[in-house]
Amino acid sequence: MIGLECFSEIKKDLEQVEQELYRFVQVENPVLAESSAHLLRAGGKRLRPAFALLAGKTHFNYNLSSLMPLAVALEMIHMATLVHDDVIDVSTTRRGIPTVRAKWGDRVSLHTGYYLFAKSLILISGYDNRRISEILAEVSVQMCQGEIQQIATAFDVSQNTKDYFYRIRRKTALLIAASCQLGAIVVGAPPAWERALTSYGYNLGMAFQITDDILDLIADAAELGKPIGGDLRQGIITLPIIYAMKNSSRAQELQTMVAMRPKSDADIANAIDIIKESGAIDYAARVAEAYVNKAKKALSGLPANPARHSMQLIAEFIKVRNH
Amino acid sequence: MIGLECFSEIKKDLEQVEQELYRFVQVENPVLAESSAHLLRAGGKRLRPAFALLAGKTHFNYNLSSLMPLAVALEMIHMATLVHDDVIDVSTTRRGIPTVRAKWGDRVSLHTGYYLFAKSLILISGYDNRRISEILAEVSVQMCQGEIQQIATAFDVSQNTKDYFYRIRRKTALLIAASCQLGAIVVGAPPAWERALTSYGYNLGMAFQITDDILDLIADAAELGKPIGGDLRQGIITLPIIYAMKNSSRAQELQTMVAMRPKSDADIANAIDIIKESGAIDYAARVAEAYVNKAKKALSGLPANPARHSMQLIAEFIKVRNH
Repeated sequence: MIGLECFSEIKKDLEQVEQELYRFVQVENPVLAESSAHLLRAGGKRLRPAFALLAGKTHFNYNLSSLMPLAVALEMIHMATLVHDDVIDVSTTRRGIPTVRAKWGDRVSLHTGYYLFAKSLILISGYDNRRISEILAEVSVQMCQGEIQQIATAFDVSQNTKDYFYRIRRKTALLIAASCQLGAIVVGAPPAWERALTSYGYNLGMAFQITDDILDLIADAAELGKPIGGDLRQGIITLPIIYAMKNSSRAQELQTMVAMRPKSDADIANAIDIIKESGAIDYAARVAEAYVNKAKKALSGLPANPARHSMQLIAEFIKVRNH
Repeated sequence: MIGLECFSEIKKDLEQVEQELYRFVQVENPVLAESSAHLLRAGGKRLRPAFALLAGKTHFNYNLSSLMPLAVALEMIHMATLVHDDVIDVSTTRRGIPTVRAKWGDRVSLHTGYYLFAKSLILISGYDNRRISEILAEVSVQMCQGEIQQIATAFDVSQNTKDYFYRIRRKTALLIAASCQLGAIVVGAPPAWERALTSYGYNLGMAFQITDDILDLIADAAELGKPIGGDLRQGIITLPIIYAMKNSSRAQELQTMVAMRPKSDADIANAIDIIKESGAIDYAARVAEAYVNKAKKALSGLPANPARHSMQLIAEFIKVRNH
């Protein structure tokens, strides 16, 4: 979703983070080492470490080695959540009947997730600042609540935009906000600076997730790397879906389809048509844009420097991709 | 396994911990509140909080309110591991094909576990002592490694006692050791005191798990609350099994049975007979007794007070039950 050019400011430092991540998962236990390295190789843009570094780099006190444990811990926590998405995805693709092999994978996944989480806490406890552990623990609790809520509200067509925002805040925005905030804390930025970066991260995270949820409906499957309509299939009711279930002329038909499980490919295609016709995509894109604008505005109080410029570019990039 | 009379010294305080545990899981999210309270109601003797309180009570600085966050956090971390045992048990009892309901439960369980773990970290980050978070994070990492190892070595008849001790140290002993150690840290006990209590907890935890593993083979099913031979069924190869696979005159036959899956009830009964005949139960009981003696010896340097006496009683009790 974000071009790597936005990170040119910290490219070299991110490469060092990458090396450190691989070093970090080289552990005694071969199963854990393998499953963790597999996760790392699966890629990702290391967005959370990138935000922590960029946030730190807005300040003259920037120092990679002091930010390194934070950067590694943030990616590990993110990876831990990915492992659990994997667990859930496996169950979906196998239509509710996991093979023994899939089950073995689930159990190892479960503990790999815990392991990465706990390991990241050890890293973090090395900082002589209680707030850092507190913020990460609090975000982790919120993330769990978001996940639970996503499970509890799956296929529930009665939910509204407030329910949606509750979920994506916890699923995505709070960890990105914490990445920016903690980057600021580690370099010793003053409170107003830290607040500005937290707000940037939060609003950007919200815009991210909304954009992601739009792309799940309108992207090219090849570009997305998976079939579109995945959220509909899993019963995850996103902003465009909520809008269309309320405002489409075929609202009732759409609601019935959204609640239905399992859905055929034709059902998914049909639901997406109704959503597109309703103007839901434009609506959601406007909401994302409003968050992007808030994110950019949050930066305005910070000194104009290359890191701030990169952060603005990142925000711009999300906006461009919405249309 | 332990009589409640051993805890009379801290009975009133444990009742307060119990209330605090219920207050702690009363959260906004109804699914999380329900699943957590269900776990609490399922019971357990709150051994880890009890050890933290007893360890604290060996020192004149004992204060329930300062130990309360630790006591609650320890039980929450233990509960988080129980949730995951549940996940695994569900899959077993349903013969590998979970119903949709069972699967829903698994996903919620997974996040409830994380949630309890993360919540306990928030509690712990309230202490103005970095070592407390560090120790708990380190123990959590070790516990994950133990779980992964248990999965990786299931049904593997080539493992030896060293592999077994590696697992039970991580599965059980380290968290009990940490409970005692952290109780000592919170009350500000001096380093030698802390070391003595850590050693007590560690050795007691090892004795506990070995005794538990013996009982899984020889207990009365009604008393145990589940069919005996559960470890054999799940391929968890415990100390008596390892001993018998090496020393029994029917070692080869036993190895074949242990590696086999699934096993019939007759297979389990047969395997248990071979194990009993081999002298494995006595051997394992002697090993447990050696740990009990080490645990008691660890206490000898502490002042003779009621808390120390209770801790000695607890150790005695394990010993008695072995024979």
